[in-house]
Amino acid sequence: MILTQVLKRGAAFYPHHIATIDGEHRQTYQEMRNRVTAFAAALQQRGVKQGDRIAILMLNGHEFAEVIFACWDIGAVVVPLNYRLAAEELIFIINDAECVAMISDDVMLPMTVAMRPRLEGIQHYIATAPAENFLGYEDLIANATASVVTPEIAENDLAGLFYTSGTTGLPKGVMLSHRNLWMNLLHSLAAIPAREGEVYMHAAPMFHLADFPSLMSITLHGNTHVMLKKFDPAGLLELIERERVTSVTLVPTMINFIINHPDVHRRDLSSLTRIGYGASPMPAELLKRTMQTLPGVELSQGYGQSESSPLLTRLSPQDHVLEGPEHLTRRLASCGRPIIGVELQIFDDSDQPVKQGEVGEIVARGPNVMLGYWKRPEETARTLRGGWLHTGDAARMDEHGFFYIVDRTKDMIVTGGENVYSTEVENVLFKHPAVREVAVIGTPDEKWGEVVAAVVTLKSGVIATAEELISHCAEHLAHYKTPKLIEIRDSELPKGGTGKIDKKVLREPYWKGYARRVN
Amino acid sequence: MILTQVLKRGAAFYPHHIATIDGEHRQTYQEMRNRVTAFAAALQQRGVKQGDRIAILMLNGHEFAEVIFACWDIGAVVVPLNYRLAAEELIFIINDAECVAMISDDVMLPMTVAMRPRLEGIQHYIATAPAENFLGYEDLIANATASVVTPEIAENDLAGLFYTSGTTGLPKGVMLSHRNLWMNLLHSLAAIPAREGEVYMHAAPMFHLADFPSLMSITLHGNTHVMLKKFDPAGLLELIERERVTSVTLVPTMINFIINHPDVHRRDLSSLTRIGYGASPMPAELLKRTMQTLPGVELSQGYGQSESSPLLTRLSPQDHVLEGPEHLTRRLASCGRPIIGVELQIFDDSDQPVKQGEVGEIVARGPNVMLGYWKRPEETARTLRGGWLHTGDAARMDEHGFFYIVDRTKDMIVTGGENVYSTEVENVLFKHPAVREVAVIGTPDEKWGEVVAAVVTLKSGVIATAEELISHCAEHLAHYKTPKLIEIRDSELPKGGTGKIDKKVLREPYWKGYARRVN
Repeated sequence: MILTQVLKRGAAFYPHHIATIDGEHRQTYQEMRNRVTAFAAALQQRGVKQGDRIAILMLNGHEFAEVIFACWDIGAVVVPLNYRLAAEELIFIINDAECVAMISDDVMLPMTVAMRPRLEGIQHYIATAPAENFLGYEDLIANATASVVTPEIAENDLAGLFYTSGTTGLPKGVMLSHRNLWMNLLHSLAAIPAREGEVYMHAAPMFHLADFPSLMSITLHGNTHVMLKKFDPAGLLELIERERVTSVTLVPTMINFIINHPDVHRRDLSSLTRIGYGASPMPAELLKRTMQTLPGVELSQGYGQSESSPLLTRLSPQDHVLEGPEHLTRRLASCGRPIIGVELQIFDDSDQPVKQGEVGEIVARGPNVMLGYWKRPEETARTLRGGWLHTGDAARMDEHGFFYIVDRTKDMIVTGGENVYSTEVENVLFKHPAVREVAVIGTPDEKWGEVVAAVVTLKSGVIATAEELISHCAEHLAHYKTPKLIEIRDSELPKGGTGKIDKKVLREPYWKGYARRVN
Repeated sequence: MILTQVLKRGAAFYPHHIATIDGEHRQTYQEMRNRVTAFAAALQQRGVKQGDRIAILMLNGHEFAEVIFACWDIGAVVVPLNYRLAAEELIFIINDAECVAMISDDVMLPMTVAMRPRLEGIQHYIATAPAENFLGYEDLIANATASVVTPEIAENDLAGLFYTSGTTGLPKGVMLSHRNLWMNLLHSLAAIPAREGEVYMHAAPMFHLADFPSLMSITLHGNTHVMLKKFDPAGLLELIERERVTSVTLVPTMINFIINHPDVHRRDLSSLTRIGYGASPMPAELLKRTMQTLPGVELSQGYGQSESSPLLTRLSPQDHVLEGPEHLTRRLASCGRPIIGVELQIFDDSDQPVKQGEVGEIVARGPNVMLGYWKRPEETARTLRGGWLHTGDAARMDEHGFFYIVDRTKDMIVTGGENVYSTEVENVLFKHPAVREVAVIGTPDEKWGEVVAAVVTLKSGVIATAEELISHCAEHLAHYKTPKLIEIRDSELPKGGTGKIDKKVLREPYWKGYARRVN
């Protein structure tokens, strides 16, 4: 199966269903099908060939979905770009991927214009807003006359390059085939069954692979996509009420903003039945508060990474147990069990399975595991050694097969020879009533190599001192795990492209002048 | 993914869940895992190798499930046999498949003993009941000491041979790989989501591929299998009540027996929430009566065949509409839409797609389509020509993608140059209040080549003449479609292995002495 089947099915079986809602713009699947075909024909007519890479630099919108399906229709490879990256990073990625065409929206147009002199292979600049020296997206659709010459696409052909920022080094393009993404879609459907009449809001950025299973599943079933251009809590809550949104995927920091926003009690959120979350561990305390604030909503967690297309585990709504025996309630701190279709193990440093209950690196095997990193044979071989995808995430598994991520391996703090997993410390800080956001990092120390530190923001109208927070931690944690330093900030913590707190940025000032690389 | 993952997952995540209930015998997944491993080790120790074929001649039971998983654990190929076949047919199949081992249960033991002198390659005869010159199934499990040497199984390796009786000629072994069955399982899960706590009754014969998706899905999710040794309506209804069965797969003739059985109103069937049906078209009138008799039950239809592992289409519960506009209610006569993961088309005699709405042959493409027929390269090439599985079933598709099977192509009656699809005539006869079972066939006629005839049984205590039934048909059908002859039988119509009415047997006496082959 190849990914052209997704829109083909949606449009054939549900032509009159509403496909996308994007502000005032709405279209049916039949209309979307026609626009996608027209744009695909226009690209092909201009010389875009099977296997060519197409850069996509856009905020969320119906055009994003259209471009993805149009590229696949002509066998082109999508390269969705993180719009929060700096120009230097974007230029590197676009040139690294050797893209031949690039599509930008109105917001990203100035950035594209600025980068243009340094982009090497782009032959077709396309913009969704009118702009000099750009082909107009709507013009191309309106004037398309040729029909698409359907290429022969094999299931192991490349469908997309998804660049991971990584924690160190240069961005790497994760190569995912039609089969990789299709199998992940089937695995996701087995884990999270589709429902008739689903109205799904794209709230997390669509460039991120975490959004792709929903992009495809909703289309396949003729359900409705609601586009939130860019995340903001008030806008999201208003849109849920206005469009009767039933489901949404968020990252924990977004959920935190929403449940602390006053509108959460003012808006009619009764249509909402499902929140999926993931991309970073969710503190158990925040999870509890969310379940209390939105009691009618089923919460489920997904864990994965771009290299696995992306889903690997799921914590089902039934496993979100607030009260009861410890072996059930502790699952709130878990990312769930491996989904059907993938095999997961926990390996030690010599790639041997650890004893059950011990911490090691999560490794995965299955038809959803990437082809490799684009033009990086050595990193590919290292990451896929022995036929297993090495995720770089440290976890333990309990006797019922639930995985507990103790930390991203590279985010672990080593202090005086002891390993400290920052999640554990973050969980404790979240329990303090004044804390709104928290990030635990390692800072340099002459004696211990590294010590545990925390950067926090407080809820508005609440006052707490660093000393108070440290003594709160000391009550709940071993001495070596207790932060030696807590920085209280007035403004929101810096976020990466997916809304995850960017710990690299937080660490930077502390590590200036040290030889050890900030990772 | 290979099929050993199925029980591996069930036993690892749900060790203490009840796996099988078979009369008084119950076992957990941990216990089942241990028995399966022991039997696999015993087979391996006795010399059964990867790729060897194992004949299974058993009624429904927990041993059936155990044998299937044990064979896969050592890379052997299962050959489940239709226990209703005549000795001649079974001997042909077992020799054709070149089986090296055979497992029989107590019921099929006398048949096995009788066939034994003519079975060519069997080195290991195993019986679940004590018998001379047979290895005891329980002894092998109790005495297994070696551990299983896990073979390297590739996903395109053969997992099973499933013999189809076909309508003409000799039985053919459908070769299904691990990938075929695994993909069909994923497709089935996308179409029919698993539910926590499902208690599934194996009521249709487990040797039939229609039962395999449930055998695997229930195991994968740690849910419970309830074994009904052999179908009988009273026993089935009693077992639903006793074990609080939630779901079951049946063929239309079985449903017909159940809803006409007095116990349907006496038993507590409140646990039952799902009936899947398929294997032969279900008359719309019977479907309506079922929905009225069991209003709390979701009905869904599957259509497929062994060659597609087996599922191809599904009619969802939402599409079972009793009242409303015609374009919705007519779906009761449909077998639904293609499931996610397979492509379906309707081809004409030159393998070109017909115009929408026209009748042609259903063809299918997808990772669930068989590797081919065992040792039948010519029939394989013919059936899979052009990369499409030719199902031999005639259907039309409506503008919403619903498929309407008008008849098995070879079952069509050609009378005076006009095509008559027997389902249409059967539907009309079913509407008559006296009719219990019906089969429409073609009988020879000097003038028209063939004419339409029907064989029926009546409900007990009701009287109707052939003349009455013919004039009932004449009211609803064109003259050439109205049966010229109706045979009323006292005893149940003859059934094939899956409970389908065996039209070949019904046609035989009429066609004796004619040159034309009875098909």
